[in-house]
Amino acid sequence: MKGDQEFVKEVTSQMVDFSQWYLDVVLKAELMDYAPVKGCMAIRPYGYAIWEHIQQLLGERIKATGHKNAYFPLFIPQSLLQKEADHVEGFAPEVALVTRGGGEELAEKLVVRPTSEAIICSMYAKWVQSWRDLPLLINQWCNVVRWEKNTRPFLRTSEFLWQEGHTVHATEAEAEEETLKMLGVYREFVENELAIPVIAGRKTEKEKFAGALRTYSIEALMSDGRALQAGTSHNLGQHFARVFGIQFQDRDDELKYAWQTSWGVSTRLIGALIMVHGDDRGLRMPPRVAPVQVVIIPIIMKKKREEVLAKARELMQRFAGTLRLELDEREGYSPGWKFNEWEMKGVPLRLEVGPRDLENGGVTAVRRDTGEKSFVPETELEQCLPMLLREIQEGLFQQALRFRRENTRYAENFGQFKEIVVEQKGFVLAHWCGEAGCEERIKEETKATIRCLPLEEMDGGKVEGPCICCLKGRGKIVYFARAY
Amino acid sequence: MKGDQEFVKEVTSQMVDFSQWYLDVVLKAELMDYAPVKGCMAIRPYGYAIWEHIQQLLGERIKATGHKNAYFPLFIPQSLLQKEADHVEGFAPEVALVTRGGGEELAEKLVVRPTSEAIICSMYAKWVQSWRDLPLLINQWCNVVRWEKNTRPFLRTSEFLWQEGHTVHATEAEAEEETLKMLGVYREFVENELAIPVIAGRKTEKEKFAGALRTYSIEALMSDGRALQAGTSHNLGQHFARVFGIQFQDRDDELKYAWQTSWGVSTRLIGALIMVHGDDRGLRMPPRVAPVQVVIIPIIMKKKREEVLAKARELMQRFAGTLRLELDEREGYSPGWKFNEWEMKGVPLRLEVGPRDLENGGVTAVRRDTGEKSFVPETELEQCLPMLLREIQEGLFQQALRFRRENTRYAENFGQFKEIVVEQKGFVLAHWCGEAGCEERIKEETKATIRCLPLEEMDGGKVEGPCICCLKGRGKIVYFARAY
Repeated sequence: MKGDQEFVKEVTSQMVDFSQWYLDVVLKAELMDYAPVKGCMAIRPYGYAIWEHIQQLLGERIKATGHKNAYFPLFIPQSLLQKEADHVEGFAPEVALVTRGGGEELAEKLVVRPTSEAIICSMYAKWVQSWRDLPLLINQWCNVVRWEKNTRPFLRTSEFLWQEGHTVHATEAEAEEETLKMLGVYREFVENELAIPVIAGRKTEKEKFAGALRTYSIEALMSDGRALQAGTSHNLGQHFARVFGIQFQDRDDELKYAWQTSWGVSTRLIGALIMVHGDDRGLRMPPRVAPVQVVIIPIIMKKKREEVLAKARELMQRFAGTLRLELDEREGYSPGWKFNEWEMKGVPLRLEVGPRDLENGGVTAVRRDTGEKSFVPETELEQCLPMLLREIQEGLFQQALRFRRENTRYAENFGQFKEIVVEQKGFVLAHWCGEAGCEERIKEETKATIRCLPLEEMDGGKVEGPCICCLKGRGKIVYFARAY
Repeated sequence: MKGDQEFVKEVTSQMVDFSQWYLDVVLKAELMDYAPVKGCMAIRPYGYAIWEHIQQLLGERIKATGHKNAYFPLFIPQSLLQKEADHVEGFAPEVALVTRGGGEELAEKLVVRPTSEAIICSMYAKWVQSWRDLPLLINQWCNVVRWEKNTRPFLRTSEFLWQEGHTVHATEAEAEEETLKMLGVYREFVENELAIPVIAGRKTEKEKFAGALRTYSIEALMSDGRALQAGTSHNLGQHFARVFGIQFQDRDDELKYAWQTSWGVSTRLIGALIMVHGDDRGLRMPPRVAPVQVVIIPIIMKKKREEVLAKARELMQRFAGTLRLELDEREGYSPGWKFNEWEMKGVPLRLEVGPRDLENGGVTAVRRDTGEKSFVPETELEQCLPMLLREIQEGLFQQALRFRRENTRYAENFGQFKEIVVEQKGFVLAHWCGEAGCEERIKEETKATIRCLPLEEMDGGKVEGPCICCLKGRGKIVYFARAY
């Protein structure tokens, strides 16, 4: 029989090497596997199920805000990508190029989409003619390719999955409203469904999307103290409309260039889930997106073997329609082994059904987030299980929020700033004058980047202060961190 | 105000030029638009919504039969694709090749997946070790690329969307059972959800999938008399297992090569929907997959303008939760124009709300499939609307079935065979000896191919007869047709 502890032993401790812990866990929990293509991964069923829940829950929200899904080509003629100057500069270094098709050299090379502004704008130029066609609100779920040198499962892979929304509006104000609305949708979704607290803010000019007028993002703090950009929303201004010729006849009969937005989240979110909630025993999945919410483990001994199995199966049947349930009946594995394996996979709630539970007329429920055990009488299961899952969801969020609060520090001067970045990690709040020179110097000296200029005021009245770097200019408080 | 008839006039009649009718309709109904990449298309929201319903309804069935979704890389190293000899021979001529990435020439060229056997088998070789790992039942929804010379929206495009199931089994019998089970799933899905009757059968050696042991397909008849392969299911035998080394320790401790299957349907199904059900007024969508099931059109005149609009909005609200509804309140368009536009989009049911309907306490319901009008009292709407939609779904299926029956003919001799193929089109049933030579000669002389060797016996006792081509060999009755 497979023993109790070996499962967990194969995973590096977070304290020893967080990076190795991450790689161990993604493999051990069967989220993904390395594929024989540089920087690409196979997302295994357990990992993909998380993505399916993300697609469903975020997809509902995207539709509820009036967007419709569509699908645009994978390939972008190189000349199209090159139309918007900043855009091509940003993406050209990391594209994959198709140069041959059907046995022949192609007359024009095709870029495998790194993002779809170029191809979508070329279509929008045909579809948008009049103010009646606006707003045009389209989203697509697809794969994109960015040739990355240093890859890491889910966080940075040459191919990844995402959704990208692309909208067209009649006015700048409407485009800005849409940009912020979708940032808000992301924030609410990530906080309520993934149980990850985020800071919403604006990116600096240096960090904005290649081709955008303004970029906003939500930023999360991983449990190793590094930040991760969890979603972005761009006000594209008229940059793309002008080069792709997206014009409309307005109500006043004038021909005008349209205003656009684009916004996206990707399979990176799975990386965030792992790094925000995981611990040395593996994943801790928030119930709302957990592929398996409850696992039932029959504790099989000689005594009452059949009754225990029958009860476990009965529970499975009873909740199959309302919860995502798994019954682990495998033989040849000890209960302890099974506990470890399902803990590694982060299943929020374990129900143990043993001879003693039978005698007591209930089951033992064990929470993955706290390890807390409780006995639940059979008659209270319908009420208790959903309640426990809600508590776990909320508990994970609160724990992550507490961690972020404890790891968000205000730096009074550059010395203190460096010390926090190196010694304590986490978010550092500091005044910044707004100059790219200071931003770059800070990055060079500390590897910390400006994560965002927060949308919410940080400190009540004390709005402006001297720049942490140059001390001369004055500016608002912004979020810094070393980031993934 | 936009007039009544111009909308339909822009579409070629099916009788005049079926092929042009098809191209007119896909554009006019806004299913797709041509993209600035050879052979690729943008699937517009209305067309993509059909695909989303297909994904949902077929996806449920794929999961209900025990399969889990996953995602494998877009790129396949050329050497992997070349491992299985027949497979590479079948797909090499139509691949797109990535030769540059991140600004550098790649050491090994990457094939953009035309199908994923090669990349998936390379992963399965790692994941399958013991009989405990079997059966392995995985499906993926993704894009694939096959460099096509002659393309046609939805039917044959260089990039298309599909699902591909890939399973591994311990025995040949289990693989064959799976292959036929999924063919059955496709058949039931296509008939019940898309309202398209299909013939299920086996492909000949010549027509089978490159690398398969046996290929099965479902074949549908388009309303121009040409056949279309609507889905395929392959028993891959041990072909891929042997070259990719997918081996497992069986219960008897012996190391054995596994047996595999793969099966898929694609956005081609949208082409089938259009060509089976469409007419000169446009699409006719089966309610189960219709993006819009019911359109409400307020008939606005000076009289009772406000009451009519209020009633239309009330209906919209009343059924928004249970039906896929659209309310067309646009101003500046006559009711006739709106009728034509929604007919073009194939919306199964139109509800007209005019002053007279108000007086009579109900709405006028018009079926897209038959044009039949009926008055539905307000109190009966909850009962009537779903019933009408069910009748339309069933009506479309029966009409297509009748058409297929009327266009399936038995040929006694080669002369008659040719006449049917050229003059009458449709399916031709004929005896075939099983020789590839005869199959090829028939194709050369008539452009008709063997669609399948039907799984169900065709003619009761009269099983074998002399080959329609060589007259010497004897064989069973098979389905021939010119096909898309």
